[in-house]
This record gives sequence, structure tokens and C-alpha cells, in this order.
Amino acid sequence: MDWEQIEEKLYQLMAESRHGQLRGALMMLNPVDIAGFMKKLDKEKLLMLFRILPKDVSADVFSYMDADQRETLVESIADAEISALIDEMFVDDAVDFLEELPANAVKRVLQNTDPKTRAIINQFLKYPENSAGSLMTIEYCEVSQDMNVRDALKSIKETGVDKETVYTLYMLDAQRRLVGTVPLHKALVVPEETALVKLMDPGIISVNTLDDQEIVADTVRKYHMLSIPVLDGEGRLVGIITSDDIMDVIEEENTEDFEKMSGLAPAEQPYFKTKLTTLAGNRLPWLMILMFTSIISGAIISKFESVLAVNILLSASIPMLMDTGGNCGQQASTLMVRGLALGEVQFKDLFRVLWTEFRVGMLIGVVLSAVTFLRLLFLNSAPVITSAVISISLFCTVVIAKSIGCVLPLLAQRVKLDPALAASPLITTLVDAASLFIFFTIASHYIAQIAA
Amino acid sequence: MDWEQIEEKLYQLMAESRHGQLRGALMMLNPVDIAGFMKKLDKEKLLMLFRILPKDVSADVFSYMDADQRETLVESIADAEISALIDEMFVDDAVDFLEELPANAVKRVLQNTDPKTRAIINQFLKYPENSAGSLMTIEYCEVSQDMNVRDALKSIKETGVDKETVYTLYMLDAQRRLVGTVPLHKALVVPEETALVKLMDPGIISVNTLDDQEIVADTVRKYHMLSIPVLDGEGRLVGIITSDDIMDVIEEENTEDFEKMSGLAPAEQPYFKTKLTTLAGNRLPWLMILMFTSIISGAIISKFESVLAVNILLSASIPMLMDTGGNCGQQASTLMVRGLALGEVQFKDLFRVLWTEFRVGMLIGVVLSAVTFLRLLFLNSAPVITSAVISISLFCTVVIAKSIGCVLPLLAQRVKLDPALAASPLITTLVDAASLFIFFTIASHYIAQIAA
Repeated sequence: MDWEQIEEKLYQLMAESRHGQLRGALMMLNPVDIAGFMKKLDKEKLLMLFRILPKDVSADVFSYMDADQRETLVESIADAEISALIDEMFVDDAVDFLEELPANAVKRVLQNTDPKTRAIINQFLKYPENSAGSLMTIEYCEVSQDMNVRDALKSIKETGVDKETVYTLYMLDAQRRLVGTVPLHKALVVPEETALVKLMDPGIISVNTLDDQEIVADTVRKYHMLSIPVLDGEGRLVGIITSDDIMDVIEEENTEDFEKMSGLAPAEQPYFKTKLTTLAGNRLPWLMILMFTSIISGAIISKFESVLAVNILLSASIPMLMDTGGNCGQQASTLMVRGLALGEVQFKDLFRVLWTEFRVGMLIGVVLSAVTFLRLLFLNSAPVITSAVISISLFCTVVIAKSIGCVLPLLAQRVKLDPALAASPLITTLVDAASLFIFFTIASHYIAQIAA
Repeated sequence: MDWEQIEEKLYQLMAESRHGQLRGALMMLNPVDIAGFMKKLDKEKLLMLFRILPKDVSADVFSYMDADQRETLVESIADAEISALIDEMFVDDAVDFLEELPANAVKRVLQNTDPKTRAIINQFLKYPENSAGSLMTIEYCEVSQDMNVRDALKSIKETGVDKETVYTLYMLDAQRRLVGTVPLHKALVVPEETALVKLMDPGIISVNTLDDQEIVADTVRKYHMLSIPVLDGEGRLVGIITSDDIMDVIEEENTEDFEKMSGLAPAEQPYFKTKLTTLAGNRLPWLMILMFTSIISGAIISKFESVLAVNILLSASIPMLMDTGGNCGQQASTLMVRGLALGEVQFKDLFRVLWTEFRVGMLIGVVLSAVTFLRLLFLNSAPVITSAVISISLFCTVVIAKSIGCVLPLLAQRVKLDPALAASPLITTLVDAASLFIFFTIASHYIAQIAA
């Protein structure tokens, strides 16, 4: 049965109000797909379907739903019902959800949750957005140093149902400091009497509650981890972050880089969920800044008006110079942004990078300007001197664009700015001005020959 | 002890040739960090350190090493030693490594591996690059339909050491077709007599051996999976892909999109590992294409030379129009590329997107052109008609840039091209030509008034 047939069946069961069968059918589906199906329903049907789901499934489905649909649900169902839902959810999902709600709604909803959950959630809500603390969950399996494999398995059997992952056991000392981790698979292949400490991996790789999610994602990816422990300032284990949540963080961070590199303010919501004025507002600031910086290029053109007047080929070459310069700069800066993001390049490589880009720029510059020289000479029947002025300007533009393009992201990183921001269209605008300036300086030097 | 101290200690032990202690110290480290440390060593030390590692650790470290360091090792150690290494590695890592070697080296190395490994690896090497088949590993835990929890745990105890993950059990029928999966954590919290079928999740989410890695990554991320089964054309289980490898795929795919959007050919190697000529070669094709397309903009300028001559403000506005148009187009196309990549936007949304972007363009256009109109009027003391011509051109440029910017990536997706390719600098060049054309058409219409 493909997905369309499944949906049709579900619609039919809903239309016929066969709730028992509907519930049965839904339970065969993945919570992600149930949430996907719910996206298409109106408020009434949404509520009906949601109430049909078993409580543990509904909490799962709820955490995969769109923010506005969750809001619809929160408005429609009783506070007690929401609170029950929150009790059922993993702490990280509950915190995610509550962070989206207005403050008074959070208070109202939390009033009805069980006091222990409430205390934990309140604490979590205090962590800064996008910090490890705001991402973590407290549903992990802890073990003590005197346990053996049998004890650990028994403890999983007793409490494991509610754990987000049981695949890594966290060994704590009496002060709740993390002393090591035991991968569950190691415990499963040894006799049950084996002491856990013997299986323990003492090389702790962890993050701090206040670390940014980017650091978390980089660490998990680097060490190929299934989950990462989150420690407080005293080295005590306060939570874990699982790798499935990390994948979302990676995509989020990448989206942010894409946005910054295109001069967009980060979007909070998917495209179609964003209001028109927000869509426009996210784009305006950079457009405005860049519009004003491009006036510099305009001023350079005005200043050299007399040079332009001597030969139309000169004005006709402006777009080519500006575009090629912008493209060269963007290529170099993109490589730097990715290199920094993936840890392949660091600030201390500045001079090595600059030297590389300088030589790459020379190579590319020679090829592009040779082609341009020949084109002008033979296709446009331009005089040698005019062709030479334009191609030499192009060569200088390429070399300078490559150099600016690679340096700016590294400098931005150094002063704790996001490198992606420095790789934004700002580089294009800078390179534009530089290339026009070079062009006119060279052209005005040879103006007598060009005009002749 | 921080990392620098650890490295210093290791250098010291190496210098003093205390191999026993060195081995002990290395075993306290994560294989990823050992590989990181090895990056800085020369050939001789690299070899020495590598031989000190216990066999199972060395295979792990080997799979985290840089391609060129692996090559150094392969050249220096005996074929039999490499073959032993391959026998020890997980199949997916071994295949990754062999794919980088020249064909004759592969043959030589495989001659010495055990025949079963050789047969499997040979089969894997046949899958297309970046396909699910080339990513998968065969080290998974399979169970049969008549097993109970005790049987499963026993089977893990017997074979689990060599499995890349034991956390999902794959239930196969007699024809080796996948009938469902059992998450290990469910098996750990029930009595040992429980039949596995009772714990089985029948909703199979899988990929095909020939599916592209992008599909694999999207599926794993969507369903928050720890590992995904890979099926052949007949629905038989042939391998699995684990989520840690998926994170690398996600970053790889993102890097590719970044590269395409900046007019770069995808790089095979990290920045500093790439040859200068390759760095230049990856950038040249698009630069060349874009340089030639920008000649169109130049031709438009030449054609309207007489219009430019009447007022220097017109030439001075060219960079502003071109830059703003390019930036607007890039913003819209970036949003589409991310929307498509994250499944928030699809081709069928074309008209909805176009309508949205048209209105966003109107909003932004009004603001930017109003600011420009006032600037020209008051700061540049331009006549009303000249200011109006330039601002109206800007308005039209913004609206058209937004429309082209959102349509192209969607169309590219439709004809099975990469949307990122359509969001490349090509859009800037197209928008440049369009904006100049609009500008000159409007300006020449009012040329009498501007000149006056």
C-alpha cells in the first residue's frame, strides 16, 4: 500500500467515524507520518484524531507536529489534558514546545503537570536558546561504579521504558560526577557478573550546558557518537543529547549559514508558515545596507565619467568585471565558510590560505584575461591597447577578489563574528568597488592611447 | 589534562621510545583523536605509532585517517598487513578506503584478505558512488520470526562484538526479506520468554541499494532513526547504514549545495589537501560561463550608450541596480533551495511561491525605491523625473529578481537538475541583464525629459 492509499483509507475511516479501526490503523504508522497526515486536517478533525491516539503515541506525534497546529491543539483542549501530554513527553520535546508558547500559557499549562516534571522543565527553560542545556533530555540511564552487568540490565528493565536511549550507560560517582560511559553493546557480550567499570570507556567526551548547539553538533559528528553527555560547571551529569536531535541541529546551522551568505535574517519558521511582512522584513536590512554600499561603485563610475566617454567598450566591460569579481570572491569565501564549519581551516592558517588563494587567483586570472583579450581583439575588433587595459583590469580583479574573499571570513571568525556573515553579498559589493577602482585607474593611465 | 598536554606527553614517549607506555597512553584516547594526532607526524613516526596500536584499534584509527596518510601507510607496510587491517575493518569503512586506491592497488590488497571478505567487498565496490549500497555495512544483527528475547540476546552475545550496531534487530523471513525491526531497548524491558514478533515494529522504513545518499539522509533525519535497512530490488535485506555515517552525508550534501550556489565544482578533498591546479580548475568552468553571459549585460549598455550620455546619474546607478537585483534574486533562490532540501517546498507549490515572492518583491521594492527616490532628490539634487526613472527601474528589478529567483530552483528540481545549480551565480547574471534592460527601456522612454 503506498502512502496515498493509506491516506485515503484514513480519510474514509474518519468520514465513517469508525474510531476503533482508525485507532488501529494509526498505530501501524510511524508517529512522524501521523503528524504529517495531521498537517492536512482542519481543526475539528485534528482534535478528533488526536484524542483517538493512545496517550504515549499522542505525545510522540505532538512533538513532531507544526508549531501552529500545536497551538491550535493547546487552545482547544483542556489544560489538564495538555499537562498530561507534557508529563508523557521527553523533557527535551516538552521544553521545545513550551518555548514556543506565550509566557502566560506556559504558566497555565505547567500548573497541572506533576510537580517533579514542572521543576525540571522550569529549570530547563532557563537555559539560553540553542544551548546544550536547552537541547538536552534527562531521560538517560545512570549506573554506579560498583554495579555489574546484571545490575545494569536489571536497572534498564525497571526504568528503561521511559529512557530516550539506553544504549549508553553513564557511570556516576557519589557526587554525580561523570566518571565514564559504558556502551550497552559491550555489556551484552560479556558474562553477567562482569563489573561495569571493566567495560567503561574512561575518555569522556562531553559538552557543557551553556555550549552552543553548533559545538554540540561538531563534537557528536567528529566522534561518531549516538548521544553526548551534558555536564554542569562542576562536571556533574545533568542531561544527554541524542544523535537524532543533532541531525536537526546540523540542518538548522546549515540553513542559518545559507541565509547569512545570501543576506537573509535567520527565519524562525518554514517558508509557507512565515508572514509576508516577516519574509520581507528578513530580507530588507541587508538589501538596504548593500544598496547604500553599491553607491560607492556608482560614485567611482561618476568620477571617471570622462574615461568612460572615450570608448564604449569600457562601459560595456563594467558588468563583466563586476560579475567576475563578485563570483571569484564568493567562491573563495564559500570555501572558507565550509572549511571553518567542518574544521578543515582555522584562523592560524590565514597566511597559508592567502598565499594559496593568491596563486589560484593568478592561475584563474591568466586564463580569464587571456580569453577576454583574444575576444576583444578578434570578436570586437578592439585595439590592442584597449583590449590590454580591460584584460589586465580583469586579472587584477580576480586576484584581489580571491584575496578579499578568503581573508574576510577568517577575520570574522577571529573577532567572534559568524564567518558566513562576512561571506555575504558584502564581499561582492566590496569587490565591485575595488574592481571598478582598479579598472578606471588603469584605463585613465592609458586614456590617451585608448582615445587615439 | 588538556589536549596540548596529552600531545606533549605522547611526543615525549615517542622520543624516548617507550613503546609499552605509549601503547597504554594511546589506548586511553578516542580513535578519532589518535587519527588527529597522527596527522602531524612524519612518515617514519606515523608507521611506528600505527604498528604499536592493537589491531582492532588500528583498524578504527585507520578509517578516521586522511586519505593521503592512508596512502603513505599502504605504500609502506606489507600487503599482508593491509589485508589483515581490512579484515578487521567494518565493510563500509573498508570500501570507503579501497575506493580511494588505484585499481591495481585494490587488486593487490584484496588478494591477501580472507576470501569471504573479498567477495563481499568486490560486490560493494560495484555500487555507484554515493548510493545507499556504497554506504552500507553488512555487520547487522538479524533475527528470525520464531525467536524470543532470550534467543536474540544469546545471538548478540555470540556475534555482537563484530556488529556495527546491535541496537536494532532485523527480522527476516526464510527468503531473507525484511519483515520488521525490533528496537533492542524494547527487548530489554520484557521477560526473556517474550516472542520477538510481539515487539516487532512492522512499519518498515528502508531504502534501496541504488538510492542516492541524499534520500538516505533525508529519510533517517525525518524518522529520527539510529540505523536504516538497505534492501535490494526483491525486498531482501542486504545491509544497514548507521546514523553516525549519515551525519557525514548531511554535511557532504550541504557542502555540495554551498559549492554549487557559488559556482564551484564539488571538491573531492579538504581545502588544504587539494592541488592548486584542481582548486583553480574547480572554479574556472562557471567563471568562464558567467563571464560570457555577463557580456550580454555589456551589450545592453553599449546599445543604450546614447541614453547614458545624457546624465551621469544614470551610469552611476548601474552598480546599485545590478547589485540589488542580484541580491534579491539570490535571497529568493536560497530560500527555495533550503525549502526543497528540507522538504518544506515542492514543485507543485510553484504558483503559490511565485505569488508570495511577487508580493514580497512589491513590498521590498516599494521601500527600496522610495528610499532611493528621496536620496536622489535630496542628496544628489537630481531632477524629479531622473529620480523617478531610476527608482521605478529599481522597483521593477526587485520584483523580477524575486520572481526569477524563486522559479528557477523549482524548475530545476522538476527537470531533475540540482536546484542549487539554478541558484548559482547564473541567477545574478540573468537578473543583471533583465534589470539593465528594464532600466534602459524606461530611461530611453523619458530621455527627452531627463536630458532637459
